[in-house]
Amino acid sequence: MRWTKYFLPTSKEPPKDAEIVSHKLMSRAGMIDKISSGVYTYFPFGYRALKKVERIVREEMDRTGAVEFLMPALQPASLWKESGRLDEMGEEMIRFTDRHKRLMLFGPTHEEIVTDTVRKNINSWKQLPITLYQIQTKFRDEMRPRFGVVRAREFLMKDAYSFDRDEKGLEESYQKMRVAYTRIFKRCGLDCSIQQADSGVIGGKFSEEFVAKGECPELEVGHIFKLGTKYSESMKTFFIDSSGKEAPAVMGCYGIGVSRIVPAIIEGNNDDRGIVWPLSVAPFSVLLVPVNLENAAISGVGEKLYGALIDNGIDALYDDRDISAGMKFSDGDLIGIPLWAVIGKKFTEKGKIEIKIRKENRFVEVGVENATDWIIDYINKEKRCTTL
Amino acid sequence: MRWTKYFLPTSKEPPKDAEIVSHKLMSRAGMIDKISSGVYTYFPFGYRALKKVERIVREEMDRTGAVEFLMPALQPASLWKESGRLDEMGEEMIRFTDRHKRLMLFGPTHEEIVTDTVRKNINSWKQLPITLYQIQTKFRDEMRPRFGVVRAREFLMKDAYSFDRDEKGLEESYQKMRVAYTRIFKRCGLDCSIQQADSGVIGGKFSEEFVAKGECPELEVGHIFKLGTKYSESMKTFFIDSSGKEAPAVMGCYGIGVSRIVPAIIEGNNDDRGIVWPLSVAPFSVLLVPVNLENAAISGVGEKLYGALIDNGIDALYDDRDISAGMKFSDGDLIGIPLWAVIGKKFTEKGKIEIKIRKENRFVEVGVENATDWIIDYINKEKRCTTL
Repeated sequence: MRWTKYFLPTSKEPPKDAEIVSHKLMSRAGMIDKISSGVYTYFPFGYRALKKVERIVREEMDRTGAVEFLMPALQPASLWKESGRLDEMGEEMIRFTDRHKRLMLFGPTHEEIVTDTVRKNINSWKQLPITLYQIQTKFRDEMRPRFGVVRAREFLMKDAYSFDRDEKGLEESYQKMRVAYTRIFKRCGLDCSIQQADSGVIGGKFSEEFVAKGECPELEVGHIFKLGTKYSESMKTFFIDSSGKEAPAVMGCYGIGVSRIVPAIIEGNNDDRGIVWPLSVAPFSVLLVPVNLENAAISGVGEKLYGALIDNGIDALYDDRDISAGMKFSDGDLIGIPLWAVIGKKFTEKGKIEIKIRKENRFVEVGVENATDWIIDYINKEKRCTTL
Repeated sequence: MRWTKYFLPTSKEPPKDAEIVSHKLMSRAGMIDKISSGVYTYFPFGYRALKKVERIVREEMDRTGAVEFLMPALQPASLWKESGRLDEMGEEMIRFTDRHKRLMLFGPTHEEIVTDTVRKNINSWKQLPITLYQIQTKFRDEMRPRFGVVRAREFLMKDAYSFDRDEKGLEESYQKMRVAYTRIFKRCGLDCSIQQADSGVIGGKFSEEFVAKGECPELEVGHIFKLGTKYSESMKTFFIDSSGKEAPAVMGCYGIGVSRIVPAIIEGNNDDRGIVWPLSVAPFSVLLVPVNLENAAISGVGEKLYGALIDNGIDALYDDRDISAGMKFSDGDLIGIPLWAVIGKKFTEKGKIEIKIRKENRFVEVGVENATDWIIDYINKEKRCTTL
């Protein structure tokens, strides 16, 4: 991607309402833009990070054997009456009366819909176990939105629902998810602790929270629940077990705040100059910095290196803006791309590319002809380290 | 994917409210499930088709140089007052008063937000042109939802917005999109005509619709607009042009009904037994049908072939259900996967796999040892034909 063809507006000043470092840096690095209280646009650079996180979540869900689908955000209130939760949910749930006078709502969670799906389509023990998941935008009218996209009114969530024949099956499904969650957060560069938690309006007998520690504030990024038969009993989701008797499906549910992972990563990966992306979730792997585009040798090598990286499937951002080297460096630090390839003084003097490793703040000099291979090797090594 | 571990509930009967063949087949093939009027869950098989279409749309948008981002569905009514459209929009727009008594709405379209973004971040002709796009769930409280996901209250849309220095620039951006749309629909297996259209509440001077013919009903799958300065004038989106004067950005906007493409494809690609997916958007490329799993030779070859296809990156669905061959064949026709590999009588008699090409209803006998290569060759050939 060429910076001049991209939309990446950086700024020096954080927004006035920003209290935590991730909110400040996400705004300054042109990742998000506030539209209303707790409502944000993801600018392209921020959306790339979100998509990388989403991909890790999807890969690890698929690895467990969970099956992806998509339920609607719009839901009829009637299903929530059936589960008994319509009155339990407070003002956080967005409700409206549609043009045909039916009460509708925007589901802050989806136990009702998925339970309805299973009761309509599964009737034998042979069809169990099954775990279904979705990655979907959710809406909650938060009393006090804050911390940027951390506590927002519109956010991206992964929610999974397991249906088992019995408690033993639930235990297995639950443990699979617990392992998957550990892998997801580790791959994203998050250091999480697992804490027993209150199950709240979701319900069930037991739940655990995954809390990202990068120092203050602590961020809840995942929450997994053993629901038992709460929903299958109230919504009559029974199947015929192997002995021919009717039994309620035994459920679990498992949430990840996908859009919350991005600020959690930044909370734990920054310095006084900006973001320090882990390679696994960085919007781009490589930043190309030609210090002076008017120098034909520099811009020529820049174009060549950019082309070579793209041809090798490396996502590179080429800073082709007509601005000073100093501004390029300070923007580079702010947006925090893991590897930089600087084409400047060392190049004109002795034909070397200076590769900066952002997290170590270290420069390595590499001959022009070896730069692409060096970068590919570095990226592959890092990938091997973070692949579990 | 193994069918027994998947969630693909097929049925013989279409829903009572289904008027068109795509609605009937999408329901019967376990692709969608109605939750409320005009509100659907995408079951896993349907979601895979939607994701394949989404990917084609994204690839072709990226190819034009448009940049992906994500605006919120939730929007403050204040921006719509500014553009003058708040009163123009009828009951289709879902509105609610939030807990702090602010009027909010779910954006049926995003001209206001994107125009606000550009006026806040772009001030020089050097930053133009730029085209931003998003792929996002939209909400419209349709008077009369019908035809399954064709006219739904929640649906997936791609909307792009171009900002240019002048009319000449708009013309170029518009033509790029027009070409991209033609490529997208062709890659999806749709035969579209382009018709000059009414610009409605979107506005502007000129617009064209892309209508899928694939016989009755005609489906509008895309609509592109030359907006001119309608929004940039009312919302004061000015930049400094190369002569130092203030000028309004000249805009275009470009929509695709991503979730409508799926039924449009089915309308044009079906027979009396079910769906006939074009390979480019088929939820799976290959269906493996072992006719009798109790025969150890058959199930052994089935497993081996399934493993070989997966190892080669071919998305295969393995029908490992313990049901009759007849039921497997009728479900296979219904769900319409392009290639089948049948391991049955021809295998036990003479070691041959019967490969069925669904669209031609033709069988080819291939030796077991050549089956994987034959399938890979076929898929690569088809891909070359549909790559433009």
